[in-house]
Amino acid sequence: MGEEVGFLGLGIMGKAMSMNLIRHGFKVTVWNRTLSRCDELVEHGASFAETPAAVVKKCKYTIAMLSDPSAALSVVFDKDGVLEQMCSGKGYVDMSTVDSDTSSKISEAITSKGGCFLEAPVSGSKKPAEDGQLVILAAGEKKLYEEALPAFDVMGKKSLFLGQVGNGAKMKLVVNMIMGSMLNAFSEGLILADKSGLNTQTLLDVLDLGGIANPMFKMKGPTMIQKSYSPAFPLKHQQKDMRLALALGDENAVSMPVAAAANEAFKKARSMGLGDLDFSAVYEAVKFPENSS
Amino acid sequence: MGEEVGFLGLGIMGKAMSMNLIRHGFKVTVWNRTLSRCDELVEHGASFAETPAAVVKKCKYTIAMLSDPSAALSVVFDKDGVLEQMCSGKGYVDMSTVDSDTSSKISEAITSKGGCFLEAPVSGSKKPAEDGQLVILAAGEKKLYEEALPAFDVMGKKSLFLGQVGNGAKMKLVVNMIMGSMLNAFSEGLILADKSGLNTQTLLDVLDLGGIANPMFKMKGPTMIQKSYSPAFPLKHQQKDMRLALALGDENAVSMPVAAAANEAFKKARSMGLGDLDFSAVYEAVKFPENSS
Amino acid sequence: MGEEVGFLGLGIMGKAMSMNLIRHGFKVTVWNRTLSRCDELVEHGASFAETPAAVVKKCKYTIAMLSDPSAALSVVFDKDGVLEQMCSGKGYVDMSTVDSDTSSKISEAITSKGGCFLEAPVSGSKKPAEDGQLVILAAGEKKLYEEALPAFDVMGKKSLFLGQVGNGAKMKLVVNMIMGSMLNAFSEGLILADKSGLNTQTLLDVLDLGGIANPMFKMKGPTMIQKSYSPAFPLKHQQKDMRLALALGDENAVSMPVAAAANEAFKKARSMGLGDLDFSAVYEAVKFPENSS
Amino acid sequence: MGEEVGFLGLGIMGKAMSMNLIRHGFKVTVWNRTLSRCDELVEHGASFAETPAAVVKKCKYTIAMLSDPSAALSVVFDKDGVLEQMCSGKGYVDMSTVDSDTSSKISEAITSKGGCFLEAPVSGSKKPAEDGQLVILAAGEKKLYEEALPAFDVMGKKSLFLGQVGNGAKMKLVVNMIMGSMLNAFSEGLILADKSGLNTQTLLDVLDLGGIANPMFKMKGPTMIQKSYSPAFPLKHQQKDMRLALALGDENAVSMPVAAAANEAFKKARSMGLGDLDFSAVYEAVKFPENSS
Repeated sequence: MGEEVGFLGLGIMGKAMSMNLIRHGFKVTVWNRTLSRCDELVEHGASFAETPAAVVKKCKYTIAMLSDPSAALSVVFDKDGVLEQMCSGKGYVDMSTVDSDTSSKISEAITSKGGCFLEAPVSGSKKPAEDGQLVILAAGEKKLYEEALPAFDVMGKKSLFLGQVGNGAKMKLVVNMIMGSMLNAFSEGLILADKSGLNTQTLLDVLDLGGIANPMFKMKGPTMIQKSYSPAFPLKHQQKDMRLALALGDENAVSMPVAAAANEAFKKARSMGLGDLDFSAVYEAVKFPENSS
Repeated sequence: MGEEVGFLGLGIMGKAMSMNLIRHGFKVTVWNRTLSRCDELVEHGASFAETPAAVVKKCKYTIAMLSDPSAALSVVFDKDGVLEQMCSGKGYVDMSTVDSDTSSKISEAITSKGGCFLEAPVSGSKKPAEDGQLVILAAGEKKLYEEALPAFDVMGKKSLFLGQVGNGAKMKLVVNMIMGSMLNAFSEGLILADKSGLNTQTLLDVLDLGGIANPMFKMKGPTMIQKSYSPAFPLKHQQKDMRLALALGDENAVSMPVAAAANEAFKKARSMGLGDLDFSAVYEAVKFPENSS
Repeated sequence: MGEEVGFLGLGIMGKAMSMNLIRHGFKVTVWNRTLSRCDELVEHGASFAETPAAVVKKCKYTIAMLSDPSAALSVVFDKDGVLEQMCSGKGYVDMSTVDSDTSSKISEAITSKGGCFLEAPVSGSKKPAEDGQLVILAAGEKKLYEEALPAFDVMGKKSLFLGQVGNGAKMKLVVNMIMGSMLNAFSEGLILADKSGLNTQTLLDVLDLGGIANPMFKMKGPTMIQKSYSPAFPLKHQQKDMRLALALGDENAVSMPVAAAANEAFKKARSMGLGDLDFSAVYEAVKFPENSS
Repeated sequence: MGEEVGFLGLGIMGKAMSMNLIRHGFKVTVWNRTLSRCDELVEHGASFAETPAAVVKKCKYTIAMLSDPSAALSVVFDKDGVLEQMCSGKGYVDMSTVDSDTSSKISEAITSKGGCFLEAPVSGSKKPAEDGQLVILAAGEKKLYEEALPAFDVMGKKSLFLGQVGNGAKMKLVVNMIMGSMLNAFSEGLILADKSGLNTQTLLDVLDLGGIANPMFKMKGPTMIQKSYSPAFPLKHQQKDMRLALALGDENAVSMPVAAAANEAFKKARSMGLGDLDFSAVYEAVKFPENSS
């Protein structure tokens, strides 16, 4: 293809994503706060720029994959940041996972300079990033979405355009809310099985054969039974997403009693000091007190 | 293989299951209350007997697949029923879906005659039965389970032995409880998406791409959006299973707040007159009042 | 008044109640399984009979206040029991707290002999019984209710006629369900106050001054704060009543999400081994884990 | 006593409260945005000042009873406002019901001028204000609380000092959360009674005679049965308080499943368009669909 794309942020995710772009023939100009992280990409054919501003100056559109809201803001607003070179005809695609306030703030700044903005948080972690199997939840400027689609097609298995800025974040909240309720239902089922004299591993097998089989049950079930909660997604973040989803429901007068009950279980888990473990540790709160054999 | 197996009950499920046995070389002797339903099986090579007793007399073990508890009891206890010929060395495998009281009653009668008993309810409906893709939840006499395993392997993709009589029914309750809570979480998510300005079809797409993708969401989602609730599994039966699962939890002092909240939503749906529709009609109860565009 | 009334059962409650009848001029004939318990009543002017049958023979209507369902059944159905002398023109008023099945069984037996039946469980314990301050929830034969009203007026501060047999028990379930939910709300409030840096005793003071002030908060609050749960009403009985109230709701398709959530908390308390403590011990389940200062 | 007290805000509440001060011999200087509202007070012996600043200049401490946060802020920060004359040795007692942010903002401004601040929201409406029967939840400067106590004693039946600024608002949230859960439990009980064939008025009578009798059930019960929801406390405000109480619980990791279930019912009521009715209209959401006779 030969398209010129900027890429800011070469952490675990960003490195894998930009590598996929290079492999598929995109001309990529990279920048990272710790510049040495650019070396490997350059070896594979990337160009390198000294500042975010320099990347933006050189490329028609620039993708960012930063670790958190403050990094996302800093790359845009700081000296030598994105804003300094943003202008009409250029685009900025923020694929970081940030809250909708951060996203709106960046969106306003970019558009006030005449640029186009797209938020595009992803679903999927390291492995899907390496395999180009991410799911991309884009929202904002449709034109920029279409322009970036060839890049999205290389980084993800699927990209969706969700309308106005903020919808990407909302979609993630809805999905995570369903996920959190499901994990509670799953926990309750495991405990009910155990206390009723059924084998929990057998329950996992039965679940995996039926109409509600899903990757989460398959992956988390065995570790939950072993009380192993090394954090893939910290419980406190899951509970925060439940809270935000319930707040979104409050704004829109949506009654969600099952999500509310699940949220209270996550809060109980937090009060037990499990907030930094994997979100599947809610199982411990559901099954307390553990007096089964 | 050439093994001799009896088969009682040739409804939609029983016909498909016995046909699979015949196809794989089992010598099957069939009986059905409406005798004419035996004809097709006989054409394909089955033998035929005039009464359940006659089937049992002829075969080492006999499988039953009846429509409900009263049919299951009648085939065993009535004149010319299973009990009349049951004796040491013979086995009886009831694959009907019955409550645990019915199952226990049959179990006691069979064993008091010296026979072996196995309950073996299945997960899956017409299509999996035809394709030999059922999941079989067996409980009772282990020896008989092993004896029947070749037949199970032909009728199902997987069979599990769950221990003592009653465990098959309990396992179904646990699974259906998780399923009912998940369907509520899914309904709440669809409504939250809709009221928050997101497209519900897009939510289905996103869910289907991620870690909680499952056949139920994929199958029920589109019909729920279209308000189409033709009953695959009637809501009142789902609610009954939630109630029984919660009662099982009560017996064993298991607190299940998410399942309890889901159960109340199913009850609300019943009070709206939706009990005979598909269990996915709980969506209507969750989203009431419908004032979205 | 000089009316002739039979009285069966002179436990703590029955003794206090029959004493009030005597004090107010009723002619009372008493019987008790342990006959010596009759002595004190006789000293105060009661007559005495050797069997329940003898009491019924002598009196136009007979009141029973037995300790539990089996005692209530035995007094009616055993040799020399109530049934032997029951006949048209006589009445039987069972004020024991029994389940509705027991009540129905007694009702049918009495009416099949031509007699009139009234169930009349009471609200209130020893002190209100002594002070004639019970609340009487009567159901069954209206005519008998009216006949017994002068006696009720002496034993209670208020009696209510609730219609057909069974309604007395149902009314108690509804009241106890509200009570159980309130106690959970109260527990949650105490914990929220404590964890938010407010003084729990002050919360009790504020509650007692406002629109939701009630005797239960006033009585249970101080003991809950002191973790003192000497059983006035055992938690396992409260949870049983919640379960039965929810089952009554299930029969009638009434969705009760708050009661369901409260019930799950009582179940959690049971799983913590608190079933034999006072029902206010649910506070311990709600506040677990206790890590506040 | 003859103490000199300022009073800002002569709405329904403020007029009744200041009148009580005058009646009990306080020398009161009043101000109100609409000055004519001062006339009646002046006739009864109050002094009058043209601005909040003038009141503060004249009095050792000044009480404010404004309608909402914006009025409360304006009286302090606007030209001729409280701040202009605030100085060491003077006190400001804000008895308005405001959020804790507003309270903190005012507190900081007053103390930065050297003055003392007390928040003192009240429980009770018009009638208790007239009768001097308010409950006063004071928090902030203890010294000022003691100074204002004689005035509090005249306006209220009870005043409590709750510690640091913000605790008054928190205490109200806890109380209102308990109240909201109780009202839901009450609604569920009324519906369960009705659908089970019991008379709802009789339930009210029974409740009023027992251990959970409280003024709210007594007052709201009859109007709820009549579907009369003229707003004493609007449902949307009650739901907001539930939300804020749950948020306070979230901050402090307090799990409150019963309050959460109650909150979802209030949200359902909002979605039915009942937000501006009395908070007891949640009864309509709980009992929907109404198909009882």
